[in-house]
Amino acid sequence: MSKVVDAPEPPYYAVIAPAELADDTRGYFEMAESLIELARKQPGFIGIEGGYMKGFSLAVSYWESLEAIQNWSRNSRHMLAKDKAKSDWFKKYVTRIAKVEKVY
Amino acid sequence: MSKVVDAPEPPYYAVIAPAELADDTRGYFEMAESLIELARKQPGFIGIEGGYMKGFSLAVSYWESLEAIQNWSRNSRHMLAKDKAKSDWFKKYVTRIAKVEKVY
Repeated sequence: MSKVVDAPEPPYYAVIAPAELADDTRGYFEMAESLIELARKQPGFIGIEGGYMKGFSLAVSYWESLEAIQNWSRNSRHMLAKDKAKSDWFKKYVTRIAKVEKVY
Repeated sequence: MSKVVDAPEPPYYAVIAPAELADDTRGYFEMAESLIELARKQPGFIGIEGGYMKGFSLAVSYWESLEAIQNWSRNSRHMLAKDKAKSDWFKKYVTRIAKVEKVY
């Protein structure tokens, strides 16, 4: 997650996922790593970028299509991880689906 | 930059700015902070989220329109900061302009 993703020419899609973290994040980073490994195997996955600061996490994953995002959102291990994140690790979060139109 | 941005209902625009940082980032974080303060005063600015990890920086700013993004990209202090970042602080970077279509 610490490289600029080499994406194809736009348009493609970004899932922007910011989250304010709970005080106790034990298990969160391990789960995030294993989810990223799983995402890499999904059809239409392009790459992911992320960072952290002071109880805050920001991840942007890139996908070839809305359909690929939808398929990933229904993956059962992903759904379990999201439930755990929402109940235990995240104080506040949102998921933004965006169409990348231009890159320079 | 460590809060989830409260944005209006979509559509609105995101500027996704990942960067691989040089080894010597002296001055970078101060510059970033002062640029964010300046961005907050721009018409059409909604908010910014960001994070860091291992020599990598990721920032996503939100804007009401493409025009607002264009105006900000032409701001002279912003342009100077970008030049400095490209020459001194960033090893690799890209700017992705994306239209936020859905939030959940």
